[in-house]
Amino acid sequence: MLKRYFPILEWGRTYNGEVLTSDLMAAVIVTIMLIPQSLAYALLAGLPPVVGLYASILPLMLYAVFGTSRTLAVGPVAVVSLMTASAAGAVAQQGSAEYLEAAITLAFLSGMMLAVLGLLRAGFLANLLSHPVISGFITASGVLIATSQLKHIFGVRAGGDNWPEMLGSLAGEIGGLNLWTLGIGITATLFLFWVRKGAKPLLQKLGIPARAADMMAKAGPVVAVVLSIIAVSILRLEDRGVAITGSIPQGLPPFAMPSTDLSLIEQLWVPALLISIIGFVESVSVAQTLAAKRRQRISPDQELIGLGASNVASAFSGGYPVTGGFARSAVNFDAGAQTPAAGAFTAVGIALATLFLTPLLYSLPIATLAATIIVAVLSLVDLKTPRRLWLYSKADFAAHVATIGITLISGVEMGVIAGVAVGLLLYLWRASRPHAAIVGRVPETEHFRNVERHQVFTVPHVLSIRIDEALTYLNARWLEEYVLERVAEKPELRHVILMCSAVNEIDASGLESLEAINHRLADGGIGLHLSEVKGPVMDRLKRSHFLDDLNGEVFLSQSRAFEKCVADDGRAPESNDPLLARGMI
Amino acid sequence: MLKRYFPILEWGRTYNGEVLTSDLMAAVIVTIMLIPQSLAYALLAGLPPVVGLYASILPLMLYAVFGTSRTLAVGPVAVVSLMTASAAGAVAQQGSAEYLEAAITLAFLSGMMLAVLGLLRAGFLANLLSHPVISGFITASGVLIATSQLKHIFGVRAGGDNWPEMLGSLAGEIGGLNLWTLGIGITATLFLFWVRKGAKPLLQKLGIPARAADMMAKAGPVVAVVLSIIAVSILRLEDRGVAITGSIPQGLPPFAMPSTDLSLIEQLWVPALLISIIGFVESVSVAQTLAAKRRQRISPDQELIGLGASNVASAFSGGYPVTGGFARSAVNFDAGAQTPAAGAFTAVGIALATLFLTPLLYSLPIATLAATIIVAVLSLVDLKTPRRLWLYSKADFAAHVATIGITLISGVEMGVIAGVAVGLLLYLWRASRPHAAIVGRVPETEHFRNVERHQVFTVPHVLSIRIDEALTYLNARWLEEYVLERVAEKPELRHVILMCSAVNEIDASGLESLEAINHRLADGGIGLHLSEVKGPVMDRLKRSHFLDDLNGEVFLSQSRAFEKCVADDGRAPESNDPLLARGMI
Repeated sequence: MLKRYFPILEWGRTYNGEVLTSDLMAAVIVTIMLIPQSLAYALLAGLPPVVGLYASILPLMLYAVFGTSRTLAVGPVAVVSLMTASAAGAVAQQGSAEYLEAAITLAFLSGMMLAVLGLLRAGFLANLLSHPVISGFITASGVLIATSQLKHIFGVRAGGDNWPEMLGSLAGEIGGLNLWTLGIGITATLFLFWVRKGAKPLLQKLGIPARAADMMAKAGPVVAVVLSIIAVSILRLEDRGVAITGSIPQGLPPFAMPSTDLSLIEQLWVPALLISIIGFVESVSVAQTLAAKRRQRISPDQELIGLGASNVASAFSGGYPVTGGFARSAVNFDAGAQTPAAGAFTAVGIALATLFLTPLLYSLPIATLAATIIVAVLSLVDLKTPRRLWLYSKADFAAHVATIGITLISGVEMGVIAGVAVGLLLYLWRASRPHAAIVGRVPETEHFRNVERHQVFTVPHVLSIRIDEALTYLNARWLEEYVLERVAEKPELRHVILMCSAVNEIDASGLESLEAINHRLADGGIGLHLSEVKGPVMDRLKRSHFLDDLNGEVFLSQSRAFEKCVADDGRAPESNDPLLARGMI
Repeated sequence: MLKRYFPILEWGRTYNGEVLTSDLMAAVIVTIMLIPQSLAYALLAGLPPVVGLYASILPLMLYAVFGTSRTLAVGPVAVVSLMTASAAGAVAQQGSAEYLEAAITLAFLSGMMLAVLGLLRAGFLANLLSHPVISGFITASGVLIATSQLKHIFGVRAGGDNWPEMLGSLAGEIGGLNLWTLGIGITATLFLFWVRKGAKPLLQKLGIPARAADMMAKAGPVVAVVLSIIAVSILRLEDRGVAITGSIPQGLPPFAMPSTDLSLIEQLWVPALLISIIGFVESVSVAQTLAAKRRQRISPDQELIGLGASNVASAFSGGYPVTGGFARSAVNFDAGAQTPAAGAFTAVGIALATLFLTPLLYSLPIATLAATIIVAVLSLVDLKTPRRLWLYSKADFAAHVATIGITLISGVEMGVIAGVAVGLLLYLWRASRPHAAIVGRVPETEHFRNVERHQVFTVPHVLSIRIDEALTYLNARWLEEYVLERVAEKPELRHVILMCSAVNEIDASGLESLEAINHRLADGGIGLHLSEVKGPVMDRLKRSHFLDDLNGEVFLSQSRAFEKCVADDGRAPESNDPLLARGMI
């Protein structure tokens, strides 16, 4: 029981020197990668760079205690940073104390929500986001994030919460661009794009083994940071109008308090809920993918608690909402992290950087950080999915495209809400008009198939309908209409068999519809039979009056039901089967 | 095409003298019943009594043109009147001009919404209300309505939108009760209760045929109205503090305009939507029940248009929201109405009453109207359903009881919203953890059944899983977890067969999960096979890459799939089947 809520008790028991070495090694690599990333994502969230570092210390420690993934690396991530900027920007001016307070409060609210959902074991709510909706949301977020960073590459001030606003604001300001900033920005962007594809082969040609070359290529952003600091310092670019990071406060994270202002909480709870859900879905997907590779398992409900604790910790140490990020978790995994202790060691690394490294970052140009964000998020933009979805399912395509469109036009919050709503509406629409088929017997077998797709045997006085859906309130009305319309078409009818092999549930509304059908058919002297009713469904029917009132029988197999109903006409169907089959279809 | 939107063109073509006689006869009976009912429901809605009459003229004419039910009687009904009182009471004081304007605007908004939903063919949205939610809502509404009328029986002023408020307000005012009013109220209530049960047998004993006796018993409220008018006039009860209807304006409905005040519309659109949905569901249920009795059909989407037109007409003629009512439609049906023309004739009857009859109603005591409401709505309270639902389905029971509780405590609007939300959450929760079973072959047959319920044949290197649900985004995560956990339990495994006989759909998220499972199993050297895939599902899979990448085969029958996979181990399962079967279970 205790181990369920404190997974550290599980893996901590077998911790040894060998695992320690692996974890330390991974922690060093992730720390190096995380420093520029934390600064950049804080910039994206509209916060001082040091807040990104604060959000990368205590949350990692807490996740190590409560999290169930061995390799997930928690911290600031792109999409959640964008959502934080959008939510905090709606209640305060960027750069103000209120803005920072709003970000801290978002982390606190989101952390509490995640923890409560975890204790209620309500992880299933994350299922409301379908894959097409998530991938549409991430593609659109990637476009929004990259666009939001263009102002730093051009060295101008611009704003906007959605794409048209951002492009409009940028177009209005483009006249004031700073050529030095643009030079640094473009150089850094091109360098980082090249590093992604070209660095590994080059390093391998120089004789470095594949795995080490891969790790070194991942440090590309660090190289860009170091080189651009040197360039700015030597060329004194600060005096030529290049925006730099400036002095970052040195020292461990301060103790911070989320706001207790109820009107602020009222404004922030919806964005906090959306941040929680998006953060959870992103994190759990990453964690599951990595766990599967090593045949490990994670517990989604406990992950809610782990991420909740991380966010509450982030709030109390002056950070902002965090979650498990894909890129850094993959690096952590590849670098050989064995346990969540690697995350705790990373936290120590970042803490050391906050204590000793921040003065070195004084001359770091903002344009370089923007370049690292742009290169990172453009890989989120997925242009193949729309075509694939179009071919496979128009409904999924519609949900995907609607999510992209609404996110770009109305911003991230509306995008998530609309994605969930569109997905749910399409689901309910389909659930309210399910598939059913009139079936006949495949000659000389016990199989029954759709009369429209196969050469099958039927007789005019028996109608076999295979219902291809659970009978729930969403389709109860449809069921009545469908069956009674089919019956109305066949004047010679004496028996209706509902083949229930695909009926996984009958709720109270479905039962009422069945009762109504039974009643109507009995009035017309037609028998109603059920076949192949599943065990759990049958158990329930036995607890109602339906079986007592049924004007017919329940058969274990469709074949038996069909035989008996056909015989009720006095014919011997087996003998003239092939002949009749040809005649009937 | 034109006939679809104007059903009158269909039935009008064959209209003749015989049908006319039946329709006229029914119209006379319904008119007599509708006069006291219209006055009473207007009272319940907090409106002047004449508004109930106005709402019973033009709306009936419009429904005759656009409606598809031959026997539905449209007009004011109890539940919608209560919802109108709740919505209008939230924006204005009862008795004020603003209150009446709010009621008219509700009718207009509701009419427009219904018509638009009809043109969009979005009748499926009504499915969101499950039977247990509707019956819970109607039971609770019955209790609320009856309670709200007690003040008229006691002759006191009291208010409240929900049960605790109503009871509290009533208890505070009970000291000021008027004994004459109470006398009339109790007498009328007892008389009406007796008429329901005792009048028909008595009339039959007096030699009146059963059907006529039934019709006459339905006129009980008219008798109560006439007798109490006489009593009030003779005893001059008005001077003893008995509240009476007073002078009702004589004449045809005025031309009225709904409000164009945007802030009012903003406050009223949610209640208007809820009134639309509840009204539509009530009306369509009645219409379907009656149509089924005569083997006729209605079109739910066209019903939306018919009710929409009726409500818009109600708004422009000084009425309030209307819908098809159960009691009056049943009377119309029993009285022999053949076409919607009966409704138009009823409208003429009510118009004549408005022109000539209203002076006679001057001395009608309010307590008598309250008594007719109380007796009518107590039949809505259904005390058997909770027990029946408890036995059949705990989830449906929970939705039912939650709807009753929330409607009583928080009022009708919150009740409907909560009912839909609870139903949907329970549905999504169940959909996210569907049923699946490990199956084996029933010895010496081609049938496969759950290993936990039947004596079946299995082998350790083949795992057959029957998935009992469509694979959608709601359960995609579950599918991956379920299959991979089952696989992890069986080290000897070489083949996994997913039996898809109950899989009615695989959406893009489900497909991604299948791809992930295929990928994971292939890594472990395990084959993944599908069996009994339905036609439409297979058509779709062929449009994706899944079948190309599948590390296994797709079989038409589970039996064939099992045979082939078992054979892959080099054994001959058929021969030692019974032996193995005994050994394996």
